[in-house]
Amino acid sequence: MGETLIIGGGGMVGQKLAATLDASPLHPDKKVTLFDLGFPTNGAPAAVRATGNATDAALIKSLISKRPEMIFHLAAIVSGEAETNFDLGWQVNMGAFQTFLEAIREEHNASGGSYRPRVVFTSSIAVFGPPFPDKIGDEFLCAPQTSYGAQKAISELLLSDYIRKGFCDGLAIRLPTICVRPGKANLAASSFFSGIIREPLNGQEAILPVSTDVRHWHASPRSAAGFLRHAATLDTSLLGNRRALNLPGVSCTVEEQIEALRDIAGNDVVALIKPEPDDAIRTIVAGWPRDFAPERAVALGFKAEPDFHEIIRVYINDDLNQ
Amino acid sequence: MGETLIIGGGGMVGQKLAATLDASPLHPDKKVTLFDLGFPTNGAPAAVRATGNATDAALIKSLISKRPEMIFHLAAIVSGEAETNFDLGWQVNMGAFQTFLEAIREEHNASGGSYRPRVVFTSSIAVFGPPFPDKIGDEFLCAPQTSYGAQKAISELLLSDYIRKGFCDGLAIRLPTICVRPGKANLAASSFFSGIIREPLNGQEAILPVSTDVRHWHASPRSAAGFLRHAATLDTSLLGNRRALNLPGVSCTVEEQIEALRDIAGNDVVALIKPEPDDAIRTIVAGWPRDFAPERAVALGFKAEPDFHEIIRVYINDDLNQ
Repeated sequence: MGETLIIGGGGMVGQKLAATLDASPLHPDKKVTLFDLGFPTNGAPAAVRATGNATDAALIKSLISKRPEMIFHLAAIVSGEAETNFDLGWQVNMGAFQTFLEAIREEHNASGGSYRPRVVFTSSIAVFGPPFPDKIGDEFLCAPQTSYGAQKAISELLLSDYIRKGFCDGLAIRLPTICVRPGKANLAASSFFSGIIREPLNGQEAILPVSTDVRHWHASPRSAAGFLRHAATLDTSLLGNRRALNLPGVSCTVEEQIEALRDIAGNDVVALIKPEPDDAIRTIVAGWPRDFAPERAVALGFKAEPDFHEIIRVYINDDLNQ
Repeated sequence: MGETLIIGGGGMVGQKLAATLDASPLHPDKKVTLFDLGFPTNGAPAAVRATGNATDAALIKSLISKRPEMIFHLAAIVSGEAETNFDLGWQVNMGAFQTFLEAIREEHNASGGSYRPRVVFTSSIAVFGPPFPDKIGDEFLCAPQTSYGAQKAISELLLSDYIRKGFCDGLAIRLPTICVRPGKANLAASSFFSGIIREPLNGQEAILPVSTDVRHWHASPRSAAGFLRHAATLDTSLLGNRRALNLPGVSCTVEEQIEALRDIAGNDVVALIKPEPDDAIRTIVAGWPRDFAPERAVALGFKAEPDFHEIIRVYINDDLNQ
């Protein structure tokens, strides 16, 4: 087993993954390289950092020329930004991913076929679009209603074909909305799902841009890192030719999120949530999935939190006051 | 209603479409331009011909700069060739389609948003992969097992996002295997489905590379032209945000094809079919769909033949001895 590369290793999930790989390595003797536009000042200690843009084909080629055996690909323009900046979204979320796969194919061919890394790609439940069944099953069609979702669905199809052809191994995991994200709000349309928990727990006001009956699908940052670790060591022969997986998560309404926060932190904290409807965000979120029956992923051993209370406790334990 | 452009207008289906538009125009006063690498010598008479490569971005841009209101996009590298020539398949079947959509977006923007053509794109049932239900429904996932299928599924996702953003209107139609194709065998892995009917009816031997229990999904070239015409005038508001349609067809086994040929043309004709197993073709075809329940397309008025006997009769009537 060779080295590990995390593309998008400076982001929140990339840093969580790097921290768990540091604390409990998959392969103790091998190094982890993080690649991203930039890094937090107090990031994962033992990892090597490489700075650059995922759209820089020469740079990606040089990273792949070192033949990392395990590659996590997490780099993306988030949903809200991909919706407003059409060109940037397609360049990064599709174009750069195709460039990355081409670099792998080139190295695979240069090695006489022996280089065949495992790629774990973070896709998203944004690949789905309404109308939805009560629970989305493992054979439900992809009909994305955002450019971000279309770009993720396309990247899954690209990855699957490169795997089928034998250039690499791996899988795409469709992450639930990761909640509670530590740090600041980002440009993802889903950012408020974390904000309404995180900001009040930090004594700050939070904006709620949608109505409280919105139901959505969540997992914690700790689960996200766990999904990635599990995907890294999974027996991929169990996947057959279907290399994109719906993952487990917690289905709950915004009201249930708020009531869980009230149970854990009290009325004064909940009072910091301020409803302020935002039509742009409401429209995007209305096209998102609400619930899943992720039977394949559960059978393959992927695990998330049992309820939203636990998701809040994970935030308090792992990130609050860090 | 402005002019009509058929990209891939020199191919078999493009020529069938052009011939029906010539005989019975959708819009009598407007011209039809056919674009392709080349054209048959006795092609559709009234159409304007433009010769070139669909991967030539400048050429595609110049065709779109004339602002055709109706565009049929049929150009593709066929499945067998896309499987053996990986680069060419991706360049034409995905790259050129993206270039085409970008040319439309540019013209849409240059027109201040008023140019918004209808695009009818020929996708394929190769977007699906096994394991299959008995009949594939309208909400079944895309899990292609050929590069061709992946490229078609990706093109559908691209088109849907450009439609959602308002740059164009239209839909993708997932054609059944078109059978009986007139003329010569081509590099499509499905070519034999036509060959085993066409060659014997022309007094020639035909190779059967798969076993007779292979079940598949067919429609005639006449139906293909009919699907395209119907898609051109369909009320697209009925499609909502799901712009890729499974079309009606005939599900039958190779044995049923052969027995239909025997009923119509007799034992001596059937005796010209020579079984000669080909593992490469068997592997590709084993991953193809067998049957569908295309409820949306039927409700929208798309029509195919009732049985394979009728598919053979259409060939005899439209193409044999032409």
